[in-house]
Amino acid sequence: MSPFDLSILFFLQLAIILGFCRIVGWLAARMGQPQVVGEMIAGVLLGPSVFGALAPGLQAELFPPASKPVLFATCQVGLSIYMFLVGVEFDASLIKAKFRSAASVSLSGIIVPFALGAAAAWYLAPHWPLFSEKTSSWEGMLFMGAAMSITAFPMLARIIYERGLTGTPLGTLALAAGSIDDAAAWCVLALVLASFSGDPSVALLAIGGGLLYVLAVWRFGVPLFKFLAAKTEKRGGMSHAMLGTTLSVVMLGAWFTDKVGIYAVFGAFILGVAVPKGFFAQALHKHLEKMTTAFLLPLFFIYSGLNTKIGLIISPQLFGVTLLLFFLAVFGKGVACAVAARLHGETLRQSLAIGTLMNARGLMELIILNIGLERGLITPTLFTMLIVMAIATTLMATPVFNLVRRGEA
Amino acid sequence: MSPFDLSILFFLQLAIILGFCRIVGWLAARMGQPQVVGEMIAGVLLGPSVFGALAPGLQAELFPPASKPVLFATCQVGLSIYMFLVGVEFDASLIKAKFRSAASVSLSGIIVPFALGAAAAWYLAPHWPLFSEKTSSWEGMLFMGAAMSITAFPMLARIIYERGLTGTPLGTLALAAGSIDDAAAWCVLALVLASFSGDPSVALLAIGGGLLYVLAVWRFGVPLFKFLAAKTEKRGGMSHAMLGTTLSVVMLGAWFTDKVGIYAVFGAFILGVAVPKGFFAQALHKHLEKMTTAFLLPLFFIYSGLNTKIGLIISPQLFGVTLLLFFLAVFGKGVACAVAARLHGETLRQSLAIGTLMNARGLMELIILNIGLERGLITPTLFTMLIVMAIATTLMATPVFNLVRRGEA
Repeated sequence: MSPFDLSILFFLQLAIILGFCRIVGWLAARMGQPQVVGEMIAGVLLGPSVFGALAPGLQAELFPPASKPVLFATCQVGLSIYMFLVGVEFDASLIKAKFRSAASVSLSGIIVPFALGAAAAWYLAPHWPLFSEKTSSWEGMLFMGAAMSITAFPMLARIIYERGLTGTPLGTLALAAGSIDDAAAWCVLALVLASFSGDPSVALLAIGGGLLYVLAVWRFGVPLFKFLAAKTEKRGGMSHAMLGTTLSVVMLGAWFTDKVGIYAVFGAFILGVAVPKGFFAQALHKHLEKMTTAFLLPLFFIYSGLNTKIGLIISPQLFGVTLLLFFLAVFGKGVACAVAARLHGETLRQSLAIGTLMNARGLMELIILNIGLERGLITPTLFTMLIVMAIATTLMATPVFNLVRRGEA
Repeated sequence: MSPFDLSILFFLQLAIILGFCRIVGWLAARMGQPQVVGEMIAGVLLGPSVFGALAPGLQAELFPPASKPVLFATCQVGLSIYMFLVGVEFDASLIKAKFRSAASVSLSGIIVPFALGAAAAWYLAPHWPLFSEKTSSWEGMLFMGAAMSITAFPMLARIIYERGLTGTPLGTLALAAGSIDDAAAWCVLALVLASFSGDPSVALLAIGGGLLYVLAVWRFGVPLFKFLAAKTEKRGGMSHAMLGTTLSVVMLGAWFTDKVGIYAVFGAFILGVAVPKGFFAQALHKHLEKMTTAFLLPLFFIYSGLNTKIGLIISPQLFGVTLLLFFLAVFGKGVACAVAARLHGETLRQSLAIGTLMNARGLMELIILNIGLERGLITPTLFTMLIVMAIATTLMATPVFNLVRRGEA
């Protein structure tokens, strides 16, 4: 296909992706579900599992392999800007405020699911096609552990914001614990990816590059953002030049972290954390958030759905494995966090609410799974199993949260 | 290159494109030039003309042919959203307010440059490699005429806004005349493209499809936007769902008009015109404008620059032809509009100011030239000549405008 033909097709793909996400998102909203649930499901529906099974010819025409680079590159850019915004909203002072409970909840929220995930990988890997042949059992365990420990931090933050829980003990604790967990799981993933290459020099590049990157952001990124923030504040608003400069830096960070092997999403997130909170951060949010989440992010959900093949787990045994992973995920993350919160003196309701929020995997899980699949660490089978787990844990978050909060102020 | 490698490269391209546009844009601003001038020049500098001549290996590594589809598809999306926003800001009531002068200025601003362009094409085509072999002399004349009649409408609107001239007789007249001219030139281009296919059924598809499209926008687009506008106003702001739906429709319109052969930019512009003015239009502008112009639009300038090969016109004769086209462009558009305004009773200064504003070609010319090149209507030589003309007419607009306005209130 010529660039021109691909560009025409890209318009059609965008129209269908956005339109379809709207319809499923509308249905999800009517069932009291957040937008992200609708888009996760829309992705699976447009992929080979449903649309591809019903109309394989049409599906192949709409998403031919030749169009993959355009879709992938664009959704990676959207994801990076989104993770940058997540970093911009990340507030380390919250962690300090509730340090002890937060540390305890988040530690449980990592150790238990990580241990369960690693054990499951160790136990299941010899019997089921979960990992590719070149994945060592050690790497498989680390990956599964990281995948189990993920928290849908942005979704958690949005639920807390929407319910007016920002600043409450519950809200602060959940935000603090969630952000620690996510940061930790991403670090583990970075280690897995670094080790997976097999070649020690590649692992060294990833770890060394990652450290160098954090250092560079701290040494150059922080002062640059401070400078841009001061200019923006003085001007009373964000100019095209400020926004263009910021995005240029984000793209550079995304490129560098992709290049050394620890992925663009980390690079963008770390840069976001380096942005000083206040007027500049709010202006970035104002100008980037809507277009990123309404226009670019749906592309990632659909891309992820194109990789999801429900057909791969339609057998009683494989479905059983999926169910097992789902229960381990809920038990490891949700129950463990609730227990930890309860032990730290939170009420039963509060503890259950925290466990529910921490349990949702959302978009973050999709990111880690797509990286694992893309790098050839996991098979499409395990990918699909964990996508089902991610959707189910995300889907149950809102109703369970409403249930345990019912009757409370 | 794998999709993943292309995605890494795309991050680097974006970082360099955005960063470089910032630097050149900053230099342009220091010389009192608008942003668009900086980005037009940045494109030429990053292309084969300068960067490619100085460091051919590096340039080829940064912009390999395999990366073209991603760059092209993304910049087309950016361009469509931008043209949609231009349409959103298009205000037909302005034309009514100053109908007689506007009609007269815009008519001169089309007929004279069109006639000069067509004559130049007829005279020059047999002697110089301006058009491809399959372009008939009739099509060459029409294309050159349309290319000469273009006005940088968005830039004109921005200058008028920035100088606080909105609502003044000068501002209203220039906006009205500029928008009529642009609409007319695009219609001519649509006709040329329709006729160029050679196959009458293709031309019929373009004309029929275009009419059908306008009808569909009027029948379905207008009520849909009215509905979205009412909802947005009631809610007091734009939701993700509203924005997603709007962009889905824009992408659908872009796809359809690309598919029938009259180009995505028209489709997006016409949809923009169908948006009711007021709160909804302002909300769209607020959420889309910054990210589109600061992030997506630079891609188009660079893509256009990658096609510009200054080396093709480095010979005294070819440079002479370029100079001739430039003079015809300035005389045909700028002088003719100024004379028409003067004949309609505007002051000499006002008339000169209007001529200057109408004369700038800006981004609009780049769009028409890239379409002509992409369709194989014009050669890279004529493309480069007219790029030089576009940059020169855009570059001269601000200083000449300041000169003729000097001393006035």
